[in-house]
Amino acid sequence: MNPHAQLDATHDPALRSWVASANDGATDFPIQNLPYARARRAGTGEPWRIVVAIGDQALDLAAAIRAAEHTEAQAAALAPLACGDLNAFMARGPADWQLVRASLSRALAAGSPAEAALAPCLVAQSALEFSLPCRVGDYTDFYTSLHHATTIGRMFRPDNPMLPNYRWVPIGYHGRASSLVVSGQDVRRPTGQTLPPGHEVPQFGPCKRLDYELELGLIVGTGNAQGEPVSIGQADAHLFGVVLLNDWSARDIQAWEYQPLGPFLSKNFASTLSPWVVTMAALAPFRAPFTRPEGEPQPLPYLDSTANRAAGAIDIALHVQLETAAMASAGAPPVTLSSSRWPDAGYWTAAQLVTHHTVGGCNLQPGDLLGTGTLSGPTPDQAGSLLELSMGGKAPITLPNGEQRTFLADGDRVVLRGRCSAPGAVSLGFGECSGRIVA
Amino acid sequence: MNPHAQLDATHDPALRSWVASANDGATDFPIQNLPYARARRAGTGEPWRIVVAIGDQALDLAAAIRAAEHTEAQAAALAPLACGDLNAFMARGPADWQLVRASLSRALAAGSPAEAALAPCLVAQSALEFSLPCRVGDYTDFYTSLHHATTIGRMFRPDNPMLPNYRWVPIGYHGRASSLVVSGQDVRRPTGQTLPPGHEVPQFGPCKRLDYELELGLIVGTGNAQGEPVSIGQADAHLFGVVLLNDWSARDIQAWEYQPLGPFLSKNFASTLSPWVVTMAALAPFRAPFTRPEGEPQPLPYLDSTANRAAGAIDIALHVQLETAAMASAGAPPVTLSSSRWPDAGYWTAAQLVTHHTVGGCNLQPGDLLGTGTLSGPTPDQAGSLLELSMGGKAPITLPNGEQRTFLADGDRVVLRGRCSAPGAVSLGFGECSGRIVA
Repeated sequence: MNPHAQLDATHDPALRSWVASANDGATDFPIQNLPYARARRAGTGEPWRIVVAIGDQALDLAAAIRAAEHTEAQAAALAPLACGDLNAFMARGPADWQLVRASLSRALAAGSPAEAALAPCLVAQSALEFSLPCRVGDYTDFYTSLHHATTIGRMFRPDNPMLPNYRWVPIGYHGRASSLVVSGQDVRRPTGQTLPPGHEVPQFGPCKRLDYELELGLIVGTGNAQGEPVSIGQADAHLFGVVLLNDWSARDIQAWEYQPLGPFLSKNFASTLSPWVVTMAALAPFRAPFTRPEGEPQPLPYLDSTANRAAGAIDIALHVQLETAAMASAGAPPVTLSSSRWPDAGYWTAAQLVTHHTVGGCNLQPGDLLGTGTLSGPTPDQAGSLLELSMGGKAPITLPNGEQRTFLADGDRVVLRGRCSAPGAVSLGFGECSGRIVA
Repeated sequence: MNPHAQLDATHDPALRSWVASANDGATDFPIQNLPYARARRAGTGEPWRIVVAIGDQALDLAAAIRAAEHTEAQAAALAPLACGDLNAFMARGPADWQLVRASLSRALAAGSPAEAALAPCLVAQSALEFSLPCRVGDYTDFYTSLHHATTIGRMFRPDNPMLPNYRWVPIGYHGRASSLVVSGQDVRRPTGQTLPPGHEVPQFGPCKRLDYELELGLIVGTGNAQGEPVSIGQADAHLFGVVLLNDWSARDIQAWEYQPLGPFLSKNFASTLSPWVVTMAALAPFRAPFTRPEGEPQPLPYLDSTANRAAGAIDIALHVQLETAAMASAGAPPVTLSSSRWPDAGYWTAAQLVTHHTVGGCNLQPGDLLGTGTLSGPTPDQAGSLLELSMGGKAPITLPNGEQRTFLADGDRVVLRGRCSAPGAVSLGFGECSGRIVA
């Protein structure tokens, strides 16, 4: 069974919080969400703390844990959170994750006797600065959108766009962990080698085709021992949560360098994560059946299970927004470039990615990041990158203020957003994953 | 200037140690070497300690540091070594590396007044068990042998073996850090998807074409800030040392999965490192000019410098040995499968790999590992993998006991060795990088 598909009292749509902003239907962070981040009061140099979002506030867990009494089991589960170590908390496993979620839900619910003790432990999110939510030992990026892979394949290999392995192997590769940054940090335009059309000798200089990629990132909660694969039935239980991920890409560098071993410098200068880890538990109401489109082959048995077919998908609506320097100066709101939904884009489920990653014996560790790859939907306007939206740079996009873009200009800020809605459930979101390009 | 190309008193070929076994010309660990490892007495569960090899002994640095008096500068440089943290020592930079090397050389030299205090701090290497020498945050594997790339290219892309970027871009990709293991650990044969010839639907099962790869691993000493490339003139100073690296490879899984994003499960089940980090300082006597063969293009300016041409190469002789289960049972010695030399194999120098890796802004961190890729030399018998030696599995190798191999069988043990010799220098070596395949 998938422990993350179970509904319990924490998902009750009638549940309201004594933190008033959490009860506004537009908030990303109602009491049914309760995502984790690592933060501190901006500019203070205080130690990083684990915080939980509630409305427009964040509950400082170190303070909250001191302010309340706990059972022995609660105290053990909470200890790593009190130390600011999300990795150690995740390593404790789903039973502890659930214990803490249930405790937080009760403590933050309207009418909770804990209100008086916990109210002083709230900090406005606007007063915080964030670090990455956890230490990421290894970052793997998959390539799960058939639509993205087809469009990109047509551009990079016109005579051979879709390779025969795509429908059988969850294609992925190792990314760079050291250059992951958290939302809000500027990204410097990379420099590198490119081969302009018609040239035989490459040129060296700043990237001219800088792009974003709209992705989700799965955060591994519990790892596996080297040499011991995780079966499809066990895979969901190893995942802790989901973040937004912008896998910035230098398309001109990528085109020249990527064969035969895959993208390298074109991707490793920076990838941006959203600060809030939305837990798999919070996403339970948005689980959906996972079915392959007609005519597509069924996965090999090691990647297939009844539970994965029944509830392997998670319905997350995704949006990319752009704010140019001119828009920012004029106070104009960011423009939405595209929207897509995870189930429309992903050819493989989260569980299938975990199982495939470990089937040869590779060991995952708490905090590892698995990117979904660019989540482009089936129609051209649902594309998750400028490379696709501008048809390889041939069709500039005109923005509401008259500016045009094929790729990103210096000063452009890209914001990713995600939001879940389902009948009978309270909608929730992921906050934002934002980054600005600097020269 | 390259600080690692300078000779000083620690390289004096007349230098001898009061540890007698260090003066045997056949040892890998004369007093001119002084490599670092992380080890403890086998089976004790003691904390891991940093040790330095001298002959067949290892100096326990925590004990040695307690046993001697130090200047303030020495004490600061030694503190992380006393705590068993090679990463923190490496992060302190070349001046501290040199200070400790000079101190160790004086203390272990014949006639040193420190002999009486340090002799009790020696442990026989045979009594030790090893961990990885440092925490590897990110592992990058390059592809620097033109000969390996050409042979593999012919097999994987008969119509297009050498891609046009190879002679301009130091091709590399991100590897998996979590599954790095230290010499002596068994490696489990991976399972995965393969597409047998003539099939349209892939099969799932144990790898049938399991291979080793003979590589060197460069250990990053000091990192760089994200967005701030390391120039070719500064690159050598960022490197701390060199290890042997066996990048185990599942060729049948690789052939099916590797397009378009590069090898993934075929490589990430395990890679084996030798325990001893031979420092760049110890390798100074073996520096050699780095020249491109006639007719090859010169590197772009960002990868070129007079110092790199003058002394960018390091002459390390490399050997692969195989011991089958039958040979081990019969007490037969391992057989040498191939030998090559780094300068014959590498199309790019260590400094060029560092500079290229960071040129787009990617940040390196202390302890990062840069693999050279398979170091196959120009002739077929110098190939660093079975894939090459057996011509893609078509030409089995006959071993002295009559056994044959195309790829590795369960029970096979692969041992990599490296050794440096130069006129006027004392020869030194890398110890061994060994791993046995289990079902």
